Formats: sequence, C-alpha cells, structure tokens
Amino acid sequence: MEIGKNRRRVDAWAKVTGTAKYTADLYPANCLTAKVIRSTIANGRVVSMDVREALKVPGVVKIVTCFDVPDIQFPTPGHPWSVEKSHQDIADRKLLNERVRVYGDDIGAVIAEDELAAEKAARLVRVTYETYEPLLSVEAAMAPEASRIHEEKPGNIVASSGFKIGEGDFDRLKEDGGLIYVSGTYTTQSVQHCHLEVPVSFAYMEAGRIVVVTSTQIPHIVRRVISQALGMDMGKIRVIKPYVGGGFGNKQDVLYEPLNAFLATLVGGRPVKIELSREETLGCTRVRHAITFKLEGLADKEGNLIARRFTGYSNQGGYASHAHAIMANAANIFKQLYQDKGVLESKSYTVYTNIPTGGAMRGYGIPQGDFGTEAFIEDMAWAVGMDPLEFRLKNCMKAGYKDPHLGIACYSYGLKDCMEKGRAYIHWDEKREAYAHQTGPVRRGVGMAIFCYKTGVHPISLETASCRMILNQDGSMQLQMGAAEIGQGADTVFTQMAAESTGISAEKIHIQTFQDTDVSPFDTGAYASRQTYVSGKAIRKTGLLFKSKILAYASEKLHIPGDGMDIRDDAVVDKESGDILLTLGALAEEAFYSLDHSVHITAEATSHCKDNTFATGACFVELEVDIPVGKIKIRDIINVHDSGRLINPKLAEAQVHGGMSMGLGYALGEKLIIDDQGRPRNADLLDYKMPTAMDTPDLHAAFVEIADETGPYGNKALGEPPAIPVAPAVRNALLHATGIHFNALPLDPQTLVERFMKEGLIETEGTAYV
Amino acid sequence: MEIGKNRRRVDAWAKVTGTAKYTADLYPANCLTAKVIRSTIANGRVVSMDVREALKVPGVVKIVTCFDVPDIQFPTPGHPWSVEKSHQDIADRKLLNERVRVYGDDIGAVIAEDELAAEKAARLVRVTYETYEPLLSVEAAMAPEASRIHEEKPGNIVASSGFKIGEGDFDRLKEDGGLIYVSGTYTTQSVQHCHLEVPVSFAYMEAGRIVVVTSTQIPHIVRRVISQALGMDMGKIRVIKPYVGGGFGNKQDVLYEPLNAFLATLVGGRPVKIELSREETLGCTRVRHAITFKLEGLADKEGNLIARRFTGYSNQGGYASHAHAIMANAANIFKQLYQDKGVLESKSYTVYTNIPTGGAMRGYGIPQGDFGTEAFIEDMAWAVGMDPLEFRLKNCMKAGYKDPHLGIACYSYGLKDCMEKGRAYIHWDEKREAYAHQTGPVRRGVGMAIFCYKTGVHPISLETASCRMILNQDGSMQLQMGAAEIGQGADTVFTQMAAESTGISAEKIHIQTFQDTDVSPFDTGAYASRQTYVSGKAIRKTGLLFKSKILAYASEKLHIPGDGMDIRDDAVVDKESGDILLTLGALAEEAFYSLDHSVHITAEATSHCKDNTFATGACFVELEVDIPVGKIKIRDIINVHDSGRLINPKLAEAQVHGGMSMGLGYALGEKLIIDDQGRPRNADLLDYKMPTAMDTPDLHAAFVEIADETGPYGNKALGEPPAIPVAPAVRNALLHATGIHFNALPLDPQTLVERFMKEGLIETEGTAYV
Repeated sequence: MEIGKNRRRVDAWAKVTGTAKYTADLYPANCLTAKVIRSTIANGRVVSMDVREALKVPGVVKIVTCFDVPDIQFPTPGHPWSVEKSHQDIADRKLLNERVRVYGDDIGAVIAEDELAAEKAARLVRVTYETYEPLLSVEAAMAPEASRIHEEKPGNIVASSGFKIGEGDFDRLKEDGGLIYVSGTYTTQSVQHCHLEVPVSFAYMEAGRIVVVTSTQIPHIVRRVISQALGMDMGKIRVIKPYVGGGFGNKQDVLYEPLNAFLATLVGGRPVKIELSREETLGCTRVRHAITFKLEGLADKEGNLIARRFTGYSNQGGYASHAHAIMANAANIFKQLYQDKGVLESKSYTVYTNIPTGGAMRGYGIPQGDFGTEAFIEDMAWAVGMDPLEFRLKNCMKAGYKDPHLGIACYSYGLKDCMEKGRAYIHWDEKREAYAHQTGPVRRGVGMAIFCYKTGVHPISLETASCRMILNQDGSMQLQMGAAEIGQGADTVFTQMAAESTGISAEKIHIQTFQDTDVSPFDTGAYASRQTYVSGKAIRKTGLLFKSKILAYASEKLHIPGDGMDIRDDAVVDKESGDILLTLGALAEEAFYSLDHSVHITAEATSHCKDNTFATGACFVELEVDIPVGKIKIRDIINVHDSGRLINPKLAEAQVHGGMSMGLGYALGEKLIIDDQGRPRNADLLDYKMPTAMDTPDLHAAFVEIADETGPYGNKALGEPPAIPVAPAVRNALLHATGIHFNALPLDPQTLVERFMKEGLIETEGTAYV
Repeated sequence: MEIGKNRRRVDAWAKVTGTAKYTADLYPANCLTAKVIRSTIANGRVVSMDVREALKVPGVVKIVTCFDVPDIQFPTPGHPWSVEKSHQDIADRKLLNERVRVYGDDIGAVIAEDELAAEKAARLVRVTYETYEPLLSVEAAMAPEASRIHEEKPGNIVASSGFKIGEGDFDRLKEDGGLIYVSGTYTTQSVQHCHLEVPVSFAYMEAGRIVVVTSTQIPHIVRRVISQALGMDMGKIRVIKPYVGGGFGNKQDVLYEPLNAFLATLVGGRPVKIELSREETLGCTRVRHAITFKLEGLADKEGNLIARRFTGYSNQGGYASHAHAIMANAANIFKQLYQDKGVLESKSYTVYTNIPTGGAMRGYGIPQGDFGTEAFIEDMAWAVGMDPLEFRLKNCMKAGYKDPHLGIACYSYGLKDCMEKGRAYIHWDEKREAYAHQTGPVRRGVGMAIFCYKTGVHPISLETASCRMILNQDGSMQLQMGAAEIGQGADTVFTQMAAESTGISAEKIHIQTFQDTDVSPFDTGAYASRQTYVSGKAIRKTGLLFKSKILAYASEKLHIPGDGMDIRDDAVVDKESGDILLTLGALAEEAFYSLDHSVHITAEATSHCKDNTFATGACFVELEVDIPVGKIKIRDIINVHDSGRLINPKLAEAQVHGGMSMGLGYALGEKLIIDDQGRPRNADLLDYKMPTAMDTPDLHAAFVEIADETGPYGNKALGEPPAIPVAPAVRNALLHATGIHFNALPLDPQTLVERFMKEGLIETEGTAYV
C-alpha cells in the first residue's frame, strides 16, 4: 500500500548532496551571456537606440534592439492551446517591445562572452523615448480620457465578464427593507512569487533545431509559445526542463525562453544564456494581481445570506499574460463558497495599466477572491451580530454543491468537518468569548476563513496528461511523465502512484525528473493543483496497461491465464494464494533476452480528464497585536484541509506549511511598491518584506481525509489551497482583537499604526513610537 | 518514395557547423579527470603499489589501485546477454587487474582536478611486480610448458571448435591421388581501428544512480556490463550516448565505462572523466585479431573444388573480449564462400597470449578469413592453371545456398553479377592477358577477391530492436531508436525508412541521435551490419502501427473507415483518389488539444528478428608495383556490392569508400608492431601507418541491387562488407604482377623488398635503393 505512506522524497538525496542539476548547472562551456536592455520609462515608445558605444565593449558579440525582431505578437501564459481562436490567449507582445508598457520592459538585448561585458554594454546603449503619462491604477486606465496602452483594447479593458444567479434584483431587495445591508471595498496588493531559483534558461541550435533548457513549470507549453513567437514549426523546437527551484506560477509564464531561442539563432546556434538577477526577477517578471473588490450583501436577522453583489477590478499591468482568467477565478470563489437565498450579481473587469504585469501565482486569483469574500462575510456576520463561524456554517457551500456555470461539483465534501476541526483546535468558542472585551495596548483575537478550490481547470480549459512506463532488465521501472516536478514533490507522489498501480515497489521506480519535449509524454505542466489529479489519472491508466502487458508475458511463459495473476512486491503472484510465480527481475530478463519471444515491455497512455472536484478547507488564527507599534504576532495558526485521500501525508503537510508561510507574507507585509512613475521601489529581498524563518510561527496542518471518487487515488487539490485562507483569517482575527475592519492588504506595521491613530487606539503620535 | 533517395545526412548541418555534441563537448564544469595507471610489463602480477609520492601532487583527489576494486570478474564484449550461462561472455577481468596480462594493463587510476595533476601522479606511483615471461605467439602460448595467463584456461586456449561437412576424409582423398593438392599458411596482423574520436566517457551520480555519458556503439549493453562489473542493479545505471566519432568495433567493447562509473562512486558522485590519449587508444584498446590460417585443398583438373581443410589460430591477447566468436566467423567464410564436392574439415582455436587484446573490428573476423580464403583460392586456381575468376565462378556459393549449421541463407543472390560487373569494369580478361608475361622493375597486375557476409547475428545471438514514434503538434514526428548513429549514417537511413512507412516526409522526422538508456527504446546497438536490417524492421513495424493509430484518429474525426485512407506527403488522403482529407498538422493539433478526445499519438514496438541473409560482393584491383622500392600503386580499384536494395545510394557509396580505404590500410601498411616484451612500438599515428587521403587512390563503388525478401525495405548488410575483400584482391593482383605468393599481411615496402630480394627480382642489395 503506497498511497498514504510517508515516503522520503525521491529527490532528497540529489538535492541534499547538491548533485541535482538545475538549469545553471548545465551551462555549456562556451555559453554566451545575454542581458536584457530594459526601458527606463513605464509608458511610451522607443524612438531610437544608439548601440555604437555599447558595441565597443570588449567581449560584446551582438546587440539586438526592438527594431530587429520579427513582427510577431505572441501570448505568454501557460495555458493549453485552444483550437478555437476566441479561446486563445491574448498575443500582445513581441520578443522585444518598441511600444513600452511597463518600467523595465524588454527593449533590447546584449549578447556577450561574459556577464560583465553584457551588463556594461547594456548600460551604454543610448535610448530615446517618446514618453506618455503612466497609468497606474484601474481608475486611471479606465478613465474616458486615458490613452490606450494596447491600441486594440479601448478603455484599456483586457476583458470583462458578468453573471447573475437567482431571480430578483439586488437593488430592489435592498430597497425593500427588512434586510441587513453591508458593503465594503477590499483591496489586495501586487506581490511577487519569490521562488528560490530565478528565471534562467539557455538556448542553442542543433541540426537546424533550437534547443532551450529552462527552469519552467510548463515545458510543453514553452515549446509551443516559442514556436508562435519565432514563427517556427513546433517540431523544430526542443525544450528541456531540469530540476526547478520553485515557480509558484511565475514559471507558468513563458517569460524569456522565446527571446533566448531567438538570440541563439543570431549567433550561429552557439549557446546563449539568460539568467535574471534577483532584482529583475522581482521587478520585471509577473506579480500576483492587485484586485479591488466592491462588495455588497443582504442578510436577514437569522443570519441567512439573501443576496450579494460583486464587482471586481483586476489591475493587469502592461501585458495580458493570464489576464481575465485570474479575475474570473476570484469572482468564482465569491459565487461558490456561499450560496444566496435570493440573488447574486457579479461583474468583473481586467484592466491594462503600466504597473508590472500580473500573471499566475499560487491560487490563481483565489487568494485575492478569498480575502475579499472572507473579509466581507466576516463583516456581514459582524453586522448581523452572529458568530462568524456559525454564520459560515449556515451559509457556506454544502455537500453536493455544483457550480451552475462550470458544472464543477463537490464529489467529496469535508468543509464543515474542517471548520469543526479548526474550531476545536484553536478553542474557538472559549477564545471568542475570552477576547471579546479587551482594552490596553496588547490585545488578542481569533479569526478564521474558509475556502474552496477546484482541482484542475476542466471544463474551462483542456486537461490532458500522458505517462510512459518502461520495464528495465532488472524488473525495475522507468517512469516518464509529462508533468513537472518543480520542487513541490510531484516526482515522489507520482512514484508512489505508479507503485500502487503496478505492484512494482517504489524503490524500483526511477522517475525522469527532466522533461524533454522531444521524448517526454505530453502534459500541460505544473499549474492549478492539477498534477496529482490529472496526471495521476494518466499514471493509473498507464499503470494498469503496463501491468496487463507484464501479466500477458507472464501468462505466455507460465501458461497461466493473466487474470489469475497479479503483481505484488515486484513479483507475479497467484491472485488467490499470493504465491510468487515469477519475480519481475526474472520476467524482465526473459522478456528482453528470450530467443523465443523478445519484447521490451513499455506502456504509454493519455488520460483526457473530464472531471473536476472541489477541495476545501479553513484557516484558524490566534494573534496578538501590539497596538502602539502596529505589530502582529501569530500565537497559533492551523490550516485544516479537505484534499481527499493524501498520497504522502508528510509531503502534504510540508505543502501546507509552505502555503501558510506564503499566506502569512501576503497578510502581514509583502507588497511590491510602485512609485508614481510606475517604477518598482523595493525589487530586492532586503526591501521586499518576505517573511524569513525567524518571522514564521509554528505552523500546524490538519486534514479531513475523505476519498474523492473522481480522484485517481481518491485525491484532490492540495498544491495551491494552503496559501488561500491565511490572509483573511489573520484579518478577521485582527478584527476580533481590535474591532477594526482592515480591508486592504498587507497588514503591515505602518498601515496598522496609521489606522490605529485614526481610530483613536493610539492616543498621541508620540505613543506609537514608545 | 524515400527508399533509394540520395537524401543529405540528417546530421550534416550539426557536424559541419561543429554544433553536434560529442561526449567531450558535454563535460560538466566541475568534472574531475581520471588517468589509468598502466602496467609496464605484459605478463605478471602487481605485488605492491606505493602511492605516497603520487598523493602529494597538488590537485590529486584520489588514487585507487587494483587492490581496492570489487572482487568481481566481468566480460567486456558488446553482445546481448544470454539467459543461458553457457552462452554468456567470458568474465575474465576486474575493474583493475592485479594479475597483469597485457602491457599497459589497467592496474590503478588517479583522480585529480586536472589532466596534468592526474598524469604527473600516475607517473609517481611506484609499482613492484612479479614478472613472467610474456607469451606473444599462439605457438608459445599453446606450448605444453607455457604458464597459464588465466588460471581457468589450461593450455591458454580460450575456446576451440570444429566441424566437418560432407562424407569422406581429407587425408584419404589426398592420398588417393589424381587430385591437385595445394597448401599454405596465411597470416594476418594486429591492426587498430583508428576511429577519429578516442574512447571517452564521464560519469556522475544522480539520486543514488550512476549516469555514464560515453562514446559507445552499444549504450544498452554498456549499461548491463556496468551493472555486472559493479554488482549494481541495472535500473540504477543510466548510459547516455551523444554523437560518436566512429568506433569500427572498438566501441563495441565496454572498455572504460565500468571503471569510470566506479570512480564516480568514490568521489561522492562528482563527475569524473576518462579520456584516452591517442597513444593509449592505439596501444591499450582492442585490436583486430592476428589470425593464422593453415589451409589445404584438393581440386580436380577441371577446376572443381573437391575438398579443403581449415585450421585457424587466433591470437586473442590478454583478455577474452569477443574471443572465439571472431575466429569462428573467420572459419565460417571459408565454409560459406565455396562449396566442396567432397569434404570440408575445419578446426579453430582462440588462444590467450600477452599481446594487446583482440576485439571486434569491422568485419568481425571476416577480413582475416577472407584474406586466408581468397589468397588460398587464388593459389588453388594458380595450381590448377585456371583463370581465378573462372575458378571462383565455378566453385563459389550459389544462389539458394544455406549454411548447414546456422541456417543462414541467400534470400537474394547477386554474387556472380558482382563478379561480372567488376570483370567488365576492370577489363579483366584483356588485362589478365596483357600483364601475363612482364619483366622489368615496374609491373602491373589485376586481382580480385569475393566475399559473403551475414547481415545480423541471428541465430548465433539474439536480434532484437525497438523503436518509438511520437506525433508532434505540427504533424512532425520524433523518431526514437535504440540503435546507434556512430558516424555511419544510421540516423539518415532510419529517417528515410520512417518516412517510407508512415507517409510523413523525411524533413518532418526528427530523430533522436542521443541514446539514453532511461528512455530510449532497447536495441543491442551498432555492430555486425545489423542496424538497417534488424532495427529497420523495428521501424517498419512501429511505422505501420503509428500510421494505423493516426488513421484511427482521422477515422474518428472524419467518419471515414480507416482502411479507405492512407497517409501521403504529410496528409491523410483518400486511398483511391489521393485527395487530401486532412493534413497531419491539423490532425495533430486536434489530437493534442481536442476537448472531445485528446490523445497523444505515439507508437512503440519491438521487432524480434529471426531472419538473416547473406550480402556478397567482390573487389577488383589493378596495381603497379615498383619492385626495387617495394612500393605498390593502386591504379584502379572497385568494390561491387550485392547489399539488396539501397536505402540511400550516396551514403551507401560513402560507406563503401570508407571500407575500401580501411581495406587498403590493412593490405598495404597497417600493423601494430609488438616487441619481444609484448610492448606496442608504434602506438601513435606517426609510426602506425594508416593511409592518409594523399595515400588513397580514387575509389569506385558499384552495386547489384536485388531486393532481399527478408530485409525490411529489401536491404541487407553493407556496413562492414566494403572492408573485407580489398586486402586479398590486392594480394592477388600482386601475385598476377610478380608471380609471387605473399601470404602475410601487410604488403608493405620492407616485406616486398625482402621477398623480392629472396626471390631474385631484386638482383643486388644495392639495386633496391636506386
């Protein structure tokens, strides 16, 4: 029984000993270095680039400007291709952009023999611009007089969407009276992913084809986007993904691989690398979208949710990237997590601006949506005068819920159990009571938030995954996945799944962690929380096929019908008695080398996944706030997850810890600060306040394990969920502690102190600094 | 129609531009260097190794001696594993040998940060030996008083074999009188392969497994032998074969990969490389076996071959390597190429000595066997007084011949046509007449030789091959072979074959030239002349499967029965009309991204080949010999080959040219000179007389194209055959020119002059130097 086993990570040895090969470990000896020349304005147009001085720098091989690239616009998000044009991603950028839309936009590149020469030359390129006023907020960009950031998008609206559920009309219900009306505006900030390994790739040509080795979550999609960007056949492009040091969604965008591929073609196919600095990574790659929610709600005195109205504005930044899919996702959790007895009206906008581009990040709009939803629900419970946990239990998504638009359903349901588990853990009822009437400079509070999260992307997008298994001569297996290990532990759970479905022991399963689009099975990659679910189904399907092929060979050799046998612990056994009939080692040796019938047993299968299911959970927080210094201390925190059956509980717990840490950063301090010229001001890890290990409290994780019938091994989403409910739970605990509704993230000391002063909790300015 | 097309090599671009990655191009940045410590005696035992001084050399990381390696003996030849112990290769060496059997034997290794430190340290290791008299010749080694080189082999006989065909008894037929009796001893020398790329590998550990990147012909076999040598599971070993710069059989031995893998385990898995110098390559790797043939024959006055007796002695050198398989092959051509009306008696011995170890080399014993056979047949024709071409036509292998022991048959037969084609080209009849009675210092002659060659190794060994095809999103194909491109053009003909069998154009077939035993289909590798035949069958089988899968998908989409469609020029077409129904690009896009039915179309199949067939051919030479200086000038030379249908005539011609050049080196000057202590004296390319481009005459190739029913595309052996008949043809032309029977190779100036002096063709010693 491999499922549910706390198996040690299959890559632990390699990572601990430093022998795991990441992209930068693989640079060829003669690799050139490319540095991107970045715009020093956020909105405008490059008029000219004078490269004469730059070309004089010794070691410079080539300088390419935005005037030298193919006139092809391409999209960057890591979505599967759609055969329908209307569902294709927005192609709104070129390899290098003459029309500048963000500060640090890619306007040129220097290729040189070394880093120093490349950097020096990049600084010596003289650029003249036509400069436009940067549009930094959604309001500014949507203003009637605003200039267009992309010509083809009037009003700078990338996309908008809306729906209504239920009969009736929100405004009429509001006017009818008798209901409690609550409204608020909730805002989230731009944050960065802060993966350990920066975006890095190198590219070279081989036999008329381009090879790109890159730290990506989506090797097969990178291949396709390079093909689009360069106008080259996909078969002529090969993408290799080595070990990856984290991505969290930033590497679900095809950031610099197309440019890197193009640069390799300019130097006769010689290898060229692009390794972003930490500063470029923070300032010039994708961010979590800053989204503003204008929310209204009506409840009756019994605490029944009657009606809600949702309006969301997502600040897209300069390029579409994942665009409205994020905003739509945020609107979805508002719809899915609670059901209104009356009506729900929803409208969403995604708007181009000149701040750093928003893209995919763990949770994909749901951390924002859950912050809005769960802060608002808390505020409604507050207005109704009801315990917020009770209010949630009364109104939240019920067992059997099915999204009316997408059809995604709760095939397993543990949400209320999660709430009860957290309630008990944190001693909710006692502490809600105990901390109800505090005074003084240091106060405590408990708060909570719940969430739901769909597992894959079906039916919004295609979900497809393939797997290949190869029997080795010693009866061990090579497991080849299209799905990507990016640090999250995928390879370990894939190995366990393959063991479960074949009877080959996990120790004898050798998974290929490198993907190579030339030979790896196809899979769209590491995003959503799809891989254990969608790619897991491919393992299960392939595993059963592989097993049947092995048993067919055993049947031929042993003259026993295949259905009377099984594979257990690396041996073909009698299904009934469990007696060993033939070890897999002996069978494999025979299969390879038999003079009668030699066959190399492999199996390969695609699983087209047409299922999806909701994972749910809750976060409970107890905090202490030092009002004069505006400092929050987390006294206790737990995430309780309903993620179906756990493949590897220890890895699941680690996944939860990582997500909670990310959620705490989001809640308490992280924010990419953009100045009035659209320039990021804290694009480094000193000034960007990501929590360190020293800032992080003990993290607790618990699970409600209910097997999901649609999951290949009873499992459902766990990758992204842990990051979701932390920020609203902290916000709600702070409300409990102080009575103050903070509606904007992050809850950093400056924000708190300013608000406490305004609210009179800090009496004099001086006090705040005692 | 791809078969028969002169397609440009698929690797031409990469090789011409220098972007093709060979093993040494892939060294990791932190790669350590290992140097083998070599014995300075040819026969004896290492008593002690003092490494103290060597360890003091800065940069030395580790020194390992023959006393530190696992006590495991393993075999080195590139043969498929046999499940029957009696058919397994001889395991007669360790990673490092305490018992020294050849000069330069591997007795230790230094691992250092760089080449210089490694070399310096290797020289500082003080070795004391127990020294035995080196046994250099078969006679010395077989002498009753000879010491044993390997304890387990009394008389130093590695193996012997014998057979008799026909009734009667050679001695009785001889004594009966009335028949013409001819006898002679024919000897061949040790020669080296002289591949451009020396043996080179590097190894490292990854997640508890060993990865070896190596220039080999047999990646899957290397994996197995490393597993044997280290006593590790095969699944924990991964072998990668990059581009290879030639092997000619030397890389069909597992030379240093096991040691390299072992060394990587001693330095915590850090990469270590072993790159042999040219001198080590020439002096310390495998050689073509020196074989001595004692031959006797009886013919009647009409020129009918009545009986023959064959005794062969193969000088194996210090280790078994391919051992008696080579000698047995040489005995086979004597049997197969001519049929005796009476009896054939054959006896062969392979004998350990202390000269450099014999291994596989292009032709695998047949160049030696053909020299013996064809010199002897020439001498028989001479004795009978018959034109040697006519004598051959009368007695040679006939259409429909079937080997009585192996069952290998002529499924297609072009031998006599080859002879006639060569006869016409060289103006045989006129020149045999014209050069019959020459005098003077410069004389001309024409000579010829024929050969036959089995294509694969069935039924002697297992013949098995697999192939995988993957449909890309653009309708192009990845072609993954277990078979190895080693410079011979395999990838190009495989591509053509795949195009032929699938309807996908060759331009859209991307073959994987690197083999990676983790994911590449299984195949025993590049040896014999098997790949276009055996691996070609796997392509054909996989191609048809792949095509059927594509048509099944097309059928589903188009609602047309699959058998009414075909694939031509990258499109699904109506079988009858040829009208395009769907391009493969459109079909592939749909198959990948369909929301109805997404499937990644791949096909993989094993072909267990139980066929074999004879290729045949002839070489015709016209030469001029300058008697006083002993110099032969080739005036004209042609090889005519019966190799079935040619996949790529231009590549076939190039293959023939290469083989002829190798044959000329063998005939005219190449010889590894071994001194009385067993030391190679000319192990460098200055002293080892390999012909240069300047030494090489215009080479002509012609073909008799008869499709072979057993070949996947009508093809049969061509890789090795061109090297076979050249040396005897030259020898026979020299006989024609001078009347002197030279029975030992090579025919170098010193040999010729000494013999001419002895025979009185050079009258005084002084004259020779005029």
